[in-house]
Amino acid sequence: MAETTNMRLRLPLICIILEVILIILFGVLVEYNDDTDAKLWNKNRTSITNDYENEFYYRYPSFQDVHVMIFVGFGFLMTFLQRYGFSSVGFNFLIAAFSLQWATLMQGFFHGMHHGKIHVGVTSMINADFCTGAVLISFGAVLGKTSPVQLLVMAIFEVTLFAINEFILLSILGANDAGGSMTIHTFGAYFGLMVTRVLYRPNLEKSKHRSTSVYHSDLFAMIGTIYLWMFWPSFNSAITNYGDPQHRTAMNTYYSLASCTLATFAFSALVNHEGKLDMVSTPSMWSSFVVQEVHIQNAALAGGVAVGTAGEMMLTPFGSMIVGFLAGTISVLGYKYLTPFLESKLKIQDTCGINNLHGMPGILGAVVGAVTASVASKDVYGKGLERVFGEDAHSNDWSAQTKGAFQAISLGVTLGMALLGGLITGLILKLPIYGAPPDTHCFEDGLYWEMPGEEEGHHELNEVATPNEVEKLSS
Amino acid sequence: MAETTNMRLRLPLICIILEVILIILFGVLVEYNDDTDAKLWNKNRTSITNDYENEFYYRYPSFQDVHVMIFVGFGFLMTFLQRYGFSSVGFNFLIAAFSLQWATLMQGFFHGMHHGKIHVGVTSMINADFCTGAVLISFGAVLGKTSPVQLLVMAIFEVTLFAINEFILLSILGANDAGGSMTIHTFGAYFGLMVTRVLYRPNLEKSKHRSTSVYHSDLFAMIGTIYLWMFWPSFNSAITNYGDPQHRTAMNTYYSLASCTLATFAFSALVNHEGKLDMVSTPSMWSSFVVQEVHIQNAALAGGVAVGTAGEMMLTPFGSMIVGFLAGTISVLGYKYLTPFLESKLKIQDTCGINNLHGMPGILGAVVGAVTASVASKDVYGKGLERVFGEDAHSNDWSAQTKGAFQAISLGVTLGMALLGGLITGLILKLPIYGAPPDTHCFEDGLYWEMPGEEEGHHELNEVATPNEVEKLSS
Amino acid sequence: MAETTNMRLRLPLICIILEVILIILFGVLVEYNDDTDAKLWNKNRTSITNDYENEFYYRYPSFQDVHVMIFVGFGFLMTFLQRYGFSSVGFNFLIAAFSLQWATLMQGFFHGMHHGKIHVGVTSMINADFCTGAVLISFGAVLGKTSPVQLLVMAIFEVTLFAINEFILLSILGANDAGGSMTIHTFGAYFGLMVTRVLYRPNLEKSKHRSTSVYHSDLFAMIGTIYLWMFWPSFNSAITNYGDPQHRTAMNTYYSLASCTLATFAFSALVNHEGKLDMVSTPSMWSSFVVQEVHIQNAALAGGVAVGTAGEMMLTPFGSMIVGFLAGTISVLGYKYLTPFLESKLKIQDTCGINNLHGMPGILGAVVGAVTASVASKDVYGKGLERVFGEDAHSNDWSAQTKGAFQAISLGVTLGMALLGGLITGLILKLPIYGAPPDTHCFEDGLYWEMPGEEEGHHELNEVATPNEVEKLSS
Repeated sequence: MAETTNMRLRLPLICIILEVILIILFGVLVEYNDDTDAKLWNKNRTSITNDYENEFYYRYPSFQDVHVMIFVGFGFLMTFLQRYGFSSVGFNFLIAAFSLQWATLMQGFFHGMHHGKIHVGVTSMINADFCTGAVLISFGAVLGKTSPVQLLVMAIFEVTLFAINEFILLSILGANDAGGSMTIHTFGAYFGLMVTRVLYRPNLEKSKHRSTSVYHSDLFAMIGTIYLWMFWPSFNSAITNYGDPQHRTAMNTYYSLASCTLATFAFSALVNHEGKLDMVSTPSMWSSFVVQEVHIQNAALAGGVAVGTAGEMMLTPFGSMIVGFLAGTISVLGYKYLTPFLESKLKIQDTCGINNLHGMPGILGAVVGAVTASVASKDVYGKGLERVFGEDAHSNDWSAQTKGAFQAISLGVTLGMALLGGLITGLILKLPIYGAPPDTHCFEDGLYWEMPGEEEGHHELNEVATPNEVEKLSS
Repeated sequence: MAETTNMRLRLPLICIILEVILIILFGVLVEYNDDTDAKLWNKNRTSITNDYENEFYYRYPSFQDVHVMIFVGFGFLMTFLQRYGFSSVGFNFLIAAFSLQWATLMQGFFHGMHHGKIHVGVTSMINADFCTGAVLISFGAVLGKTSPVQLLVMAIFEVTLFAINEFILLSILGANDAGGSMTIHTFGAYFGLMVTRVLYRPNLEKSKHRSTSVYHSDLFAMIGTIYLWMFWPSFNSAITNYGDPQHRTAMNTYYSLASCTLATFAFSALVNHEGKLDMVSTPSMWSSFVVQEVHIQNAALAGGVAVGTAGEMMLTPFGSMIVGFLAGTISVLGYKYLTPFLESKLKIQDTCGINNLHGMPGILGAVVGAVTASVASKDVYGKGLERVFGEDAHSNDWSAQTKGAFQAISLGVTLGMALLGGLITGLILKLPIYGAPPDTHCFEDGLYWEMPGEEEGHHELNEVATPNEVEKLSS
Repeated sequence: MAETTNMRLRLPLICIILEVILIILFGVLVEYNDDTDAKLWNKNRTSITNDYENEFYYRYPSFQDVHVMIFVGFGFLMTFLQRYGFSSVGFNFLIAAFSLQWATLMQGFFHGMHHGKIHVGVTSMINADFCTGAVLISFGAVLGKTSPVQLLVMAIFEVTLFAINEFILLSILGANDAGGSMTIHTFGAYFGLMVTRVLYRPNLEKSKHRSTSVYHSDLFAMIGTIYLWMFWPSFNSAITNYGDPQHRTAMNTYYSLASCTLATFAFSALVNHEGKLDMVSTPSMWSSFVVQEVHIQNAALAGGVAVGTAGEMMLTPFGSMIVGFLAGTISVLGYKYLTPFLESKLKIQDTCGINNLHGMPGILGAVVGAVTASVASKDVYGKGLERVFGEDAHSNDWSAQTKGAFQAISLGVTLGMALLGGLITGLILKLPIYGAPPDTHCFEDGLYWEMPGEEEGHHELNEVATPNEVEKLSS
């Protein structure tokens, strides 16, 4: 009977304990940076004391776009399940709110402490949101099959490993990955896929009737899709260097996404046996007799993922559109052919198909990044070479080929970290102490949320409002 | 029978009369300011003629975020009622469109005229939206129980009193309140609570069946919640001084909200007798046998309210997170225990529970602001002391304790103005001339809106689209 | 039987062919501009090398707002139809993704090549989105009655003609039209109305039962409305000159929209025979016995359209509010009286009533622009005259009256281009090769989309989640 009070005690306890720990650590470790501290701002400036030069004005609009992607984009993208809308948006909200705090600490720790303190400002806010994005990608794989307590535990481990992997890539290997094809998408996807593999549920078909979408749940999901699609240029460009890199990244992403959208519509109709398009209908996670259909909304986003590394480079709109086209194609084919295979043969139950939206396009993005970096030259970039590849790039030691090789190594490291981390985390999540939902009650809000009544009063209410009634009532 | 044509004549008449008056007053009183006037811009500049320095580029992104909160955030937050979605979004739209115009005049009048003219620009637009926010908070208390004519009349009085109160606080008492814990939230909440007290409906349980939510109406409400949550950092920082204050305010709010969200999930599950979370289900306004449940969406926002005053100060992320945690806790407990008490004992029918989202967290924010101000020092703020507390702050007369005392006095003034103003306005709204809905027809769109048909054609339509049908049709 | 595979082959083929052509043309013709190229950025600067001066920071926030209007605003505005939500959002997505690429080429070609190359950056992105807006306006007239293949073909022609018309107006006639009252709204509306006239369906009443809205589809549509309304100030000001013109345009639009909203509510209630307001209920396209009701959401936006030309001029808030009031009034009256007339007498079946939202307010905006320009003077504008009317404006040759005359001529050119272009395009779209839906199956998603199941499992699922069940399950 102890399990009866599962949510009543476990979720509150873990939330309160985690938040208290966070508050204490913030109290001990976190300080305002030069742009947010009242005393430090403008103090260290030798010449100009222009308040307009605060990085706030150059990063904050990007931050807000990223923030919308994290909370509205990811949250609503997952509302397609007919009875899991509250949990999709609500748990997305909960684990994002936790992860961004935890990420601030973990990233601050690895990105370099200042006299034992972590300095925070709008850039750390963007980075924390980025890290949160990876956790939400993994959430997509286990959506509907995990309790909020499990999700919080997953976030603790994933954020930590994300920060370590990011540190290895950016600080040790000196990789470029402004839009996170590797650090965010590849990492988040393969971490999540490994977790869901470990948590494999052989009897998930018992919840099958609930794992489909309905008309309006698909429209809510489309809100998520469109917001992710629109703001992806901001996402990829949010932490590039100022000037041409930021501007170029946004534009490359814009063209990649547009091209990807046409590819997605084309292949979505092509692989469907009736030639119909498909919105977001659920992948069949339990059987092969439900046709695995392509997903307009998810695949149309793959173009953003696939230019996450090369977007800041001189990829050209031409190159971006080719990458976007490939990404959309791969993603649609993945939903059609690979996801059923992964489920039936490899026992990977990927609720949202994150392998198709984040996994394969992420790898594609990493490869495109490595290739684009390996052909970079002073001839093409001029002085901009440093703005893209760092200050080392003007030294004679620097070679584009080496750079490209390090980009490729980074992909390998990321895959290794993600799979190993996902394995360990999955095993930890398998412990029977988190109140995971039974196979018969996956994808069901009612397990966690006080459910509102049905719309039974609809007809009755409507008839009340006839003209005559109103007339009588108000006289 | 005169009442039959109620809406037909009263609403159009008041809208047209108000708008004509607004247009005339704008014609007589309003002028472009130095940043929006073709002749004045760059004319008064001695040295630099850089168009980039127009305040537009530093305020407008914040303005747009605030604008989204006012129209999408507040509008959709109130769509949780199953049969009042059109009115929630639509009347929110109407009274906001009116209030921002009226606020431009009232605030312009009190903020200082320029040779008898009110100067307008993006800052006045933000301030007008802020004032509108207070009206929409009050709207939340009377939601479903008032006609649009009543709401417009309420807005006329509330905007006027808001401007007076704001003038007393900011200009006379020299208070800090960038995010409006006092001027917006405390004022809007207690004004609205007093209005709904005066308009008490003893027989409201006759509309009870309509005052609940349904599954999709709750998801629409979640759109409102998430937008408010995401953009609250922009709200609190929109009119602070440039540089570190604006940057710091946004960041403090971000951390406060994140912490508040975890507290809300924790206490929401803790106080529920089954340990379930609760989305936005309606407070029971008429009986005690319906369990009063906590409201994830509303309470998770309290963290933004509670740092509305101190957010621009050196509250630190640590302090912000503590405040956010407290705000979320207070808000959840308020929904659980205080709202039923207010209704049954004090006859305050608070539809959206604004006391829990805006009232108590607003007071908390005012107190936190007073305390934080009272410990401010040159040692901590350096030259930034002036950027936060104004130019007086470097004079020897200035003392943090005095400042803190004035902050506390400001809270008292605000509460007094709100309660008195709400009382008077409520009595005016009680006159039987505004076509208020009868007790039996509260929370019902059909009274005001041409209602679309039911979804009865759904099944019929769906079957049409079978593959065979399509085949036959297109051949 | 060839028609059976209609979508299967035709839509994929046209998408792939178009995208391949676009990619090739981009490869041959498109280059980064000075602000996005790694080598060119800062190279041509003589003095300052400040990365902050990249136009990205002054245009990108506006771009994102416009982007939201195009994809969320237009997309969701059209979801009011009960069974056409997927198509509204999805085809909006498809044709916008195509149009913005095609527009980049067409506008680049006409706006001036640089050594045979089209230069792209954030300004070209905004312009491409603007052109896309015109296509989406036309989409509103033929919504529900055209296949996606038809829509793509329409976009090819419309984008091309848009670019030509824009070239004539801006480059040859030297007209002002920052917010596109003429180039976007008037052009898009009359082009679309002519197309729908040519595609007249005498038996459309066979789809009548599907052409109405339902409760939640109207709420989705309201999302579109509110986003368009909020971001319209960004739309009109997105490509004005820096400084006072951009600031003033945003503010004039803000006031025009606010005033328009009150006028819309007033006249919406006034012309309804019961005095009720109307959300977005469908215009009756087939009969006169369905009361043609006014449309709050659409008409409330007319104020943005009507200051699209004069918004950057010294229209004053006073003038903007008058224009907004007129636009709202005209729009409501148009929905009430003109749309049924156009349909029954002129055989123009205008699904979304674009004549009322974009057509007439667009013409009003053009006229207001011509009048406002004709009274411009050095006395009022000072040095700002050049920032608004171009560098010629300080020469002695320049006369405001001539300017006003050219503005008026521009309106005539636009109407001519739109009607002629729409006629030709309509005739091309009439060819029976695009898989147009039959009269009996207009407004039906099922023709194009894999439809999710109904919400039949709702009740069953809900009962599962009773406290007892949960208790049993988790023990």
